Amino acid sequence: MNLLDYLPVVPDFPKPGIMFRDISPLLANAAAFKEATHQLAQISQDLEFTHLLGIESRGFIFGAALANELSKPLILARKPNKLPLDVHQESYGLEYGTDLLEMQKTILPTDAKVLLIDDVLATGGTLLASAKLVEKSGATVAGAITLLEISFLAGMQKLANQGVVAKSVLQI
Amino acid sequence: MNLLDYLPVVPDFPKPGIMFRDISPLLANAAAFKEATHQLAQISQDLEFTHLLGIESRGFIFGAALANELSKPLILARKPNKLPLDVHQESYGLEYGTDLLEMQKTILPTDAKVLLIDDVLATGGTLLASAKLVEKSGATVAGAITLLEISFLAGMQKLANQGVVAKSVLQI
Repeated sequence: MNLLDYLPVVPDFPKPGIMFRDISPLLANAAAFKEATHQLAQISQDLEFTHLLGIESRGFIFGAALANELSKPLILARKPNKLPLDVHQESYGLEYGTDLLEMQKTILPTDAKVLLIDDVLATGGTLLASAKLVEKSGATVAGAITLLEISFLAGMQKLANQGVVAKSVLQI
Repeated sequence: MNLLDYLPVVPDFPKPGIMFRDISPLLANAAAFKEATHQLAQISQDLEFTHLLGIESRGFIFGAALANELSKPLILARKPNKLPLDVHQESYGLEYGTDLLEMQKTILPTDAKVLLIDDVLATGGTLLASAKLVEKSGATVAGAITLLEISFLAGMQKLANQGVVAKSVLQI
């Protein structure tokens, strides 16, 4: 099974010039979704971690599936004003302006080793912001995994420059 | 294990008067998250369904875990402008004004029997909008399941009035 076959390109979404990879067909095929979860588990094997951090929203999907598969706790990095209680905030760059990610201040123990998870590694901006949220909590970033890496955007190198090891099931 | 112990009340979030149930501690405990997934599987047993429909964003978490556990396809009902390709739209009422949910027009086969899944059943507005999205596709709604039902808001009755059988793991 080639998982890329289940991630068709949609040109010019959400804006002109973007070649969007749609994860909907993969999720809508139970065998493909299970295989994606299995392969995410495989690439996480040599990263020592205690917690998964899923990034809103598509990171929640693969984070939840993997958390159940590996019996690991799942922590949420969310868009602003979604999480109750005190939160850490980190901004990340968008094409125009910035957006914020939040994580609850007391949800992670300080001895946690946290594996970040999202669907796609593009520029690495949201993963890097998530890594900073973990560090603000006093916990350790174990690495970052994604289903798909868009190589020409060089997000993996950007993360490596900040000490974050990133792995991806698929590369284009 | 009493799952309600992992869903603490946060008063006055996101606005005064709301007694918010925070799912973060449940997700952050691997055994509790697995037990929640297992109990969602239990209550879905006598509903005949072929697909799960997860509602953004917290429905994605339980939808993804359950889809993997039961080897069922996962379909997404998303906030506006998140899904590529042609979508069906349904509005649902908020305290002030309305919001929209979208689902891709061609993602469901017309013979699909779709089980809706979300974290909490409150007034039932988002589940009802999701049911209408399924019906617009020509597919059938098999029912709706949630982790928690807030009984006094009478969402279960509202759904029943529209022919949607709803079940919940926990009731408060």
